[in-house]
Amino acid sequence: MRMVDLIAKKRDHIELTTEEIEWMIRNYTDKVIPDYQMSAFLMAVVFNGMTPAERLALTQAMVGSGEVVDLSAIEGIKVDKHSTGGVGDKTSLILGPLVASMGVPVAKMSGRGLGHTGGTLDKLESISGMTIELDMERFIEQVNEIKLAIIGQTGNLAPADKYLYALRDVTATVESIPLIASSIMSKKIAAGADAIVLDVKFGAGAFMKTLEDAKQLAQAMVEIGRDAQRQTVAFLTDMNQPLGLAIGNALEVKEAIETLKGHGPKDLEELVLQLASQMVVLAKKAPDVETAYEQLKEKLHRGEAFNKFKEFVQAQGGDVAQIENPDLLPKADSIIPVKASQSGYVHQIDALSIGLAAMKLGAGRATKDDMIDMAVGVVLDKKVGDSVGEGDVLAYIHANRVDNEEAIAYIQKAYCICKDPVCPPTLIYDVIA
Amino acid sequence: MRMVDLIAKKRDHIELTTEEIEWMIRNYTDKVIPDYQMSAFLMAVVFNGMTPAERLALTQAMVGSGEVVDLSAIEGIKVDKHSTGGVGDKTSLILGPLVASMGVPVAKMSGRGLGHTGGTLDKLESISGMTIELDMERFIEQVNEIKLAIIGQTGNLAPADKYLYALRDVTATVESIPLIASSIMSKKIAAGADAIVLDVKFGAGAFMKTLEDAKQLAQAMVEIGRDAQRQTVAFLTDMNQPLGLAIGNALEVKEAIETLKGHGPKDLEELVLQLASQMVVLAKKAPDVETAYEQLKEKLHRGEAFNKFKEFVQAQGGDVAQIENPDLLPKADSIIPVKASQSGYVHQIDALSIGLAAMKLGAGRATKDDMIDMAVGVVLDKKVGDSVGEGDVLAYIHANRVDNEEAIAYIQKAYCICKDPVCPPTLIYDVIA
Repeated sequence: MRMVDLIAKKRDHIELTTEEIEWMIRNYTDKVIPDYQMSAFLMAVVFNGMTPAERLALTQAMVGSGEVVDLSAIEGIKVDKHSTGGVGDKTSLILGPLVASMGVPVAKMSGRGLGHTGGTLDKLESISGMTIELDMERFIEQVNEIKLAIIGQTGNLAPADKYLYALRDVTATVESIPLIASSIMSKKIAAGADAIVLDVKFGAGAFMKTLEDAKQLAQAMVEIGRDAQRQTVAFLTDMNQPLGLAIGNALEVKEAIETLKGHGPKDLEELVLQLASQMVVLAKKAPDVETAYEQLKEKLHRGEAFNKFKEFVQAQGGDVAQIENPDLLPKADSIIPVKASQSGYVHQIDALSIGLAAMKLGAGRATKDDMIDMAVGVVLDKKVGDSVGEGDVLAYIHANRVDNEEAIAYIQKAYCICKDPVCPPTLIYDVIA
Repeated sequence: MRMVDLIAKKRDHIELTTEEIEWMIRNYTDKVIPDYQMSAFLMAVVFNGMTPAERLALTQAMVGSGEVVDLSAIEGIKVDKHSTGGVGDKTSLILGPLVASMGVPVAKMSGRGLGHTGGTLDKLESISGMTIELDMERFIEQVNEIKLAIIGQTGNLAPADKYLYALRDVTATVESIPLIASSIMSKKIAAGADAIVLDVKFGAGAFMKTLEDAKQLAQAMVEIGRDAQRQTVAFLTDMNQPLGLAIGNALEVKEAIETLKGHGPKDLEELVLQLASQMVVLAKKAPDVETAYEQLKEKLHRGEAFNKFKEFVQAQGGDVAQIENPDLLPKADSIIPVKASQSGYVHQIDALSIGLAAMKLGAGRATKDDMIDMAVGVVLDKKVGDSVGEGDVLAYIHANRVDNEEAIAYIQKAYCICKDPVCPPTLIYDVIA
């Protein structure tokens, strides 16, 4: 087998066999196939796509390129959730304790990543003492004991995906539905999930800019899941404005706590309940999503999900006092209101622009070695559909730096205020199963 | 400027500027841009093509990546000829002396290359004593003295093209009309040509398999030539059967000598006269191709072209006795007839298959370091349109090896003999100027 012939096949719209794709990924991981051949192949995929069989073979070859986490010692069906990422997305912090409170085992491996705020791990680390490093034995034990553990991704999961992603990033080959779908699914499968719930976001603040692209990606991932015997459900959700109100690490933990107590922003609570309902049904802890939804709502409003969160924080060494009194979490030096320069109705809040504001304040990481400021961020006071008067507060920035002009400008630019009233946008567009 | 952005532009059908292409080629030549980015770019070009402005910029950037030969010390308009290559193509050996005999300066830099036989340089080296290494000063002097010199490509012409070609070869990105066109034109321009005649071959034995592809390539090269102020004329010629009768190094020199004396195969003589006519007109040594054609025919049949060839061989140290008596050229140990197994008319001679036979006999090179056997090859006895009886000789192999079964099988496979009579194929399909 020669890589140049496989590139030519893809270029000429000829389907590659499973053996060919396995051979290619194995030899690329082993550095036998050079980057310059793989990047030509990837660009041919950008143009010609991949068939369902090719996508599946790629996903499984990437899973097979490294370790596969064995969660069989955990009782029950392990359901993982993945979001394609958005601004203000703290759902994992809430979903974990919520579904665990229903008896669903949540054995989550999470990432840090680069972005406008930290990842789930960073957010958890804004709680004093919290450790996200458990060995596999303790991880499994904790899930069996309290149904919930969240740790950093260990070892060598799907290394081929890591190498491919790094190459795609510098060769303009990121934008390919089958490549994105295989990348996400390979990591979830390698992390040991039995079933998967996906939150595919679209809009200004998301990786997928249009509903159409998001739908294609969701469809591809659900099909890969089905073909790989991992039942998969995908949500298509709006990321044209941030999710909830808080953007920033400790600020999002606070909002997660409020939501776990049943007092969170309505959009966030609704999305969490919908995602959780699917997880509970996939874990066979409820007969249907309607039943699951009602039971989950009860868990939330009765404080059981909140108690599970405290139990989880305690198990991983975190300071529970900070959870009971979120004022003890890291706090910024100053809170500065950002005001409306005109009256009307909020028609749009550009999520990307809000994310950039949070980044300017120090809430995120541009390179792997950047330090995150846990305390800083943005808290929205107005969302799409709200009416505002001139001089009303649109949002607050929580800042530790002296010069916040740029962050303020980003927030003001993000808000689009018009005279006519407008309805709040639909959050969940579709569920694909 | 970032290479990843230029790749994305090409992927997204956005035209690159001349500055961007210059920057890209300069930095690739300097090894600042890595192969894996360039190969992704090249694959995007395979899919999205290049605009005329992009093609021109690429050609000129490749010319500018190395030395440009200065032929200004040679009197007259220097017209170069390039063939995209075929089986039995010995036109350069004949064209050079023929147009030189009309007073057109021919300062030719030629290559060895890989193929079923050697290149023009290898063929010339089958003449004892012939040197193809002249320094630039002597090269120019010889052209001024006798109007003809042929040497190996010196120094550092269009190195970017060399690097790009090597990369394309292993990344399935060879098959792109604008990339092929820019590659050929950059080398011709860097070699100092004022005007260019191209022989674009199509068919089984050629790089371009179809007339349509060959036409597109010819058109692209003529346009690049025009835009780069190098008047360019392209022929579209058939390579579904070998050109002339001889395939093999010394065998082709012998056929070239016969043709220079006016006794060559008709197809070869006709193509040479047509190509030469265009060269003479571009060099302004005749008012039109019809006049040029008649004058050239006279030069051929009066022996003036043959005398020029002898003069040229002598000037470059070759043994003129071998030219006067071609029996003194390298000769194979045995000449073996290949016979027809049925009677009828020759409908096709697969040129590629004949080329492979020559390769098997040792006439060509598969890798740069292979040795060529100058004496061996194939001489056809029948061409398309000829009638044959069962047991008639189709071709002779000139062999120095003991086992020639494979070569014979290739030749037999190449001949397609049917009952119905058929006309000889058109050799020259079109001339694009």
